[in-house]
Amino acid sequence: MTATPAAAAPLPPVPEADAGRPLQDLLKVHCYGCGALNERGLQIKSCWEGDTLVCRWTPKPHHIGPPGHVYGGLIASVVDCHAIWAAIGRQCREAGIALADGPPPFVYVTGRLTVNYLKPTPIDGPMVVSARVVEHGARKSLVHCEVRHGDLLCATAEVIAVRVARAGATTEPA
Amino acid sequence: MTATPAAAAPLPPVPEADAGRPLQDLLKVHCYGCGALNERGLQIKSCWEGDTLVCRWTPKPHHIGPPGHVYGGLIASVVDCHAIWAAIGRQCREAGIALADGPPPFVYVTGRLTVNYLKPTPIDGPMVVSARVVEHGARKSLVHCEVRHGDLLCATAEVIAVRVARAGATTEPA
Repeated sequence: MTATPAAAAPLPPVPEADAGRPLQDLLKVHCYGCGALNERGLQIKSCWEGDTLVCRWTPKPHHIGPPGHVYGGLIASVVDCHAIWAAIGRQCREAGIALADGPPPFVYVTGRLTVNYLKPTPIDGPMVVSARVVEHGARKSLVHCEVRHGDLLCATAEVIAVRVARAGATTEPA
Repeated sequence: MTATPAAAAPLPPVPEADAGRPLQDLLKVHCYGCGALNERGLQIKSCWEGDTLVCRWTPKPHHIGPPGHVYGGLIASVVDCHAIWAAIGRQCREAGIALADGPPPFVYVTGRLTVNYLKPTPIDGPMVVSARVVEHGARKSLVHCEVRHGDLLCATAEVIAVRVARAGATTEPA
C-alpha cells in the first residue's frame, strides 16, 4: 500500500461548508448502515473531532446478541460504515472537497474488515466508535477503529478501504 | 491455538435428534443475527451438508449497501453468527451432544472476525455462506467461510470462535 504517514502532521481542515455536520447528512445515501435515506437502516452519524472521526450510536433492544449485550455483527456493521466514511472524509480534507457541494468523484468500498472483540458491549446506552486513517494511499486507506462503551474498550478494528471512481462521475477521482 | 486437523478425517455424525434441522431451530435464542426468538432479527438458518455448515439467506430490499448490492455489514453479520454455529455444531458432533436435548454446557463467542470482500454481492436472491471448522481446539476454533451468490464467490472470511461455559450450566463445557 502506498501510504502517507497519517500521524505525522495534522490533517488539512474540514471544508467550511461541512464543518460540524455529520458526513452522512451532507451526502445522503440508501446504505443500510449509514444511509440517511434508509428509514429501516442503522443511520449512523459520523462527525470529525479534530482528526478523529467519531460515531455515537445507540442500539435498540432488538439489536441484542448475548444477553444484555450488543450483537457483534452490528458492531462490525457500524465499524464498517464508519471506517469508510473516515476514508471518504480524509480524502475530502486532503483534496479540499466539501461534501455539501455534492457527491465527490470517488467512493470507497471495503476491501477487508477485521474486528477484534475484547469485551462484550453493554446494550444500554451509546457505543462510541472512533476512527483514524493511519495509512492513506492513492488507492487504499487503512483505518483503525476503537469501540467503547463509557470507559470500557470493547473492540478494536482495522478496515482496508479501497477508492474507486463514483459511477457517473464526470471527473477522475480527486 | 491447540488444534486438531479438521480436514484429515470426517467428523463424527450429527446426533440423530438434530439431523436435517437448522441448528437455530434446535436451540432458540434472541440474537439479532440468528435468534429464532428475535422477530426483528435476520433469523439465519444453518444446516449441515456433510461436514460443511451451510446458510442460505435472502436479504430484504432495505438491506442494501451499494446500489443493487448487499450491505457489507450484513455479510459480516451473517458470517459471524454462522461461523459461531459451525463451532457449536462441530463441538456437539465431537461430544455426541444433541441440541434437541437442551442447551449444551458451553457457548462460543467471537474473538476475531475478518471478512475479505472480493466482489459486490447482488441483492436479488439468496447468498449462500458455507463454513468449515479448520482448527478445533479445547478453547478456540478457527472457522473458514465462503460467501457466494450463485457461482460468484463474493467474500471469504475467518472467524476465531472462543468457547466458554454457558451461564448457568451445571457441568463443565463438554
